[in-house]
Amino acid sequence: MKNCLVAQSGGPTAVINSTLLGVVKTALESEKIDRVYGSIYGIEGFLKEKIFDFNKEDIKEIELLKYTPSSALGSCRYKLKDFNEDESDYRNIFLNFEKYNIRYFFYIGGNDSMDTVDKLSRYAKIKGYDIKIIGVPKTIDNDLFGTDHTPGFGSAAKYVATSIMELSRDAAVYDKGIINIVEIMGRNAGFLAASSALAGYDGVCKQLIYLPEIAFDMDKFLQDVSSAYEKHKKIIVAVSEGIRYSDGSFVFEDKNNKAHDKFGHSQMGGVGRILGKVVKDKICKRVKVIEFNVLQRCAMHFASKTDVEEAYRCGRDAVNYALMGESGKMVCINRINSSPYISENGLIDVSEVANKEKKFPISWITKDGNNITEEGIEYLKPLIAGEVNIPTENGLPRFSRLNLCL
Amino acid sequence: MKNCLVAQSGGPTAVINSTLLGVVKTALESEKIDRVYGSIYGIEGFLKEKIFDFNKEDIKEIELLKYTPSSALGSCRYKLKDFNEDESDYRNIFLNFEKYNIRYFFYIGGNDSMDTVDKLSRYAKIKGYDIKIIGVPKTIDNDLFGTDHTPGFGSAAKYVATSIMELSRDAAVYDKGIINIVEIMGRNAGFLAASSALAGYDGVCKQLIYLPEIAFDMDKFLQDVSSAYEKHKKIIVAVSEGIRYSDGSFVFEDKNNKAHDKFGHSQMGGVGRILGKVVKDKICKRVKVIEFNVLQRCAMHFASKTDVEEAYRCGRDAVNYALMGESGKMVCINRINSSPYISENGLIDVSEVANKEKKFPISWITKDGNNITEEGIEYLKPLIAGEVNIPTENGLPRFSRLNLCL
Repeated sequence: MKNCLVAQSGGPTAVINSTLLGVVKTALESEKIDRVYGSIYGIEGFLKEKIFDFNKEDIKEIELLKYTPSSALGSCRYKLKDFNEDESDYRNIFLNFEKYNIRYFFYIGGNDSMDTVDKLSRYAKIKGYDIKIIGVPKTIDNDLFGTDHTPGFGSAAKYVATSIMELSRDAAVYDKGIINIVEIMGRNAGFLAASSALAGYDGVCKQLIYLPEIAFDMDKFLQDVSSAYEKHKKIIVAVSEGIRYSDGSFVFEDKNNKAHDKFGHSQMGGVGRILGKVVKDKICKRVKVIEFNVLQRCAMHFASKTDVEEAYRCGRDAVNYALMGESGKMVCINRINSSPYISENGLIDVSEVANKEKKFPISWITKDGNNITEEGIEYLKPLIAGEVNIPTENGLPRFSRLNLCL
Repeated sequence: MKNCLVAQSGGPTAVINSTLLGVVKTALESEKIDRVYGSIYGIEGFLKEKIFDFNKEDIKEIELLKYTPSSALGSCRYKLKDFNEDESDYRNIFLNFEKYNIRYFFYIGGNDSMDTVDKLSRYAKIKGYDIKIIGVPKTIDNDLFGTDHTPGFGSAAKYVATSIMELSRDAAVYDKGIINIVEIMGRNAGFLAASSALAGYDGVCKQLIYLPEIAFDMDKFLQDVSSAYEKHKKIIVAVSEGIRYSDGSFVFEDKNNKAHDKFGHSQMGGVGRILGKVVKDKICKRVKVIEFNVLQRCAMHFASKTDVEEAYRCGRDAVNYALMGESGKMVCINRINSSPYISENGLIDVSEVANKEKKFPISWITKDGNNITEEGIEYLKPLIAGEVNIPTENGLPRFSRLNLCL
């Protein structure tokens, strides 16, 4: 018996199950693999032997994974210790690998999950275990090294840009000035907030964009917004949740007391509300603060077709690479051409990816630090291309209902 | 010359421009109407002679209105005074009607806008002006009298239910309990929050729903949530922004000091954050507060096909009714059958609609006051049916760009 195991880890995305389907379908169809197991709640669930058997599942529900957002197998944020310091988790994991005859393990996740792939594959090599371990990338933040971009990002970017366009139409309806502050995910990397620039061409409201890659300066920000408001009256400010002052402190922490209320208490909540308050006090009473919240990472209903297909392909190729004998690697996406867009998959040593974070290139931010250059736009554009027709039932998405209980 | 005027009023919806297209296209094609004017920023803009000439616009951009959210002509919240007390606005409006040879006026809006239709048509009758004035319904709140439902509601309901489904998938990924509080629009009528029940069948998280139609009781709420949490661990609480205590005060005002912070200050913000704080203090630390915000009323990208088509039809029939000589009426939608769903348009005296508010029927709320009955679901279901394929360009919606500057 040669079985395989697949698991998901870290924050969910709209297309992480498209990748799961790529793995599961390819493995189910392969003659070299007998059973296809899923670990429920990531590697942490595998330690507790929470196993799902895909061979027993209705193939229709499996196929629906392609258009089902969030981690269908559940997820975890579990960091393995260095095996030289504490081997206990490794022993238990490999005991379970043996118990279930797991010869292939696919871990779908971001940079922390690649750390797990790295450690497990190094441990397997040292101990001489016959198992191929492949990482499959996902993250809405697009902050993974060694790949042009990451599955999950394109759909989140499309959601952000589309919602900004719609919001911009909504904001423009009255004959009055308005400043909308939109808080977008991205603690360290500004790719997602940057993708709001894609909405720019529709140009109903003037847009300003602030990313964590540029140190935030409250005075300059207020000057930017104020002069944009004077000129355009209808403004959208798109801001990464992770923007920071030059001292490295997050704006949402408000350590510099820029947004203290009249009682001297620090404002609660995210950066959007902090900036909203300051703008309301100093520039314009008509301020709306909008948080895209988890919707930006779980909205499958207007996903990027490019993203869904690439996510699927990454899962599929992970299995193919493993069957070719590869291990300790992550599937990556190489961009061959931007326009027309062509990409192909490749492999990269997972040690080059694990625990690193890619940033939005400074050279793609305009000189005044509040917008994205044409080159940046050209990078982003193909990733949101194409629409999917998700299966529906009674007017609502028909998501996969695997026979497991999260 | 017999010209017509169309305007939009009140809060925007995803499909208010589908209605606009229904009016404009039918009027442009009619031999009885010469020019088709739009008033920019509603009746208030008409007072300032802000006029848009549809005959001069590219027909392609006009056709794109069908899938363009928010009020393309801009909007206002302008209440006409009683003409027995102050006739000045009426004089100016009718001077402009004469100046532009307006013989037909179509006002797309909610109950306040129907008050304008009512007053203008009564004034015209008294003064003997030859003008037909027809109201065309829109509102995401679905609170208009005299119509089974209102264009704009179905698409908002579909957005709410779909987002709740996606959110519910997102919330379930970790092996931990979580309580999500989702704040949904609806100051006085709970239709939109009720539509979150449509997501119920997908059943990943246990859902509780609170509407303004039932007096809110904080102790009962905490008991509901607490016992749901004990049993199901993963909970979504959908709540109308307008829920009220039995004394009539809004929960978000927090007059009863239920959610005061430790310094004794009232919490800022909406009802979601108020409830989130109380739940965090008393039940579970893992609480997420999500506001759907204006996105729920401007999201065209996953609109209800039924809603888009009905919105269009209401605009079309408004013109047809006016050409038949009707005035002082509102187009309404009559439900002939629920399953299969059949509806047809009708007319109702606008005086029966103006300034009134319909509520979500109490009989459609379950006895424990925190969910929707099957009968309620059956009412809601057909309104979100069907998907539209909106025109796209570079992966983003291609909205209409009328040659006017909002």
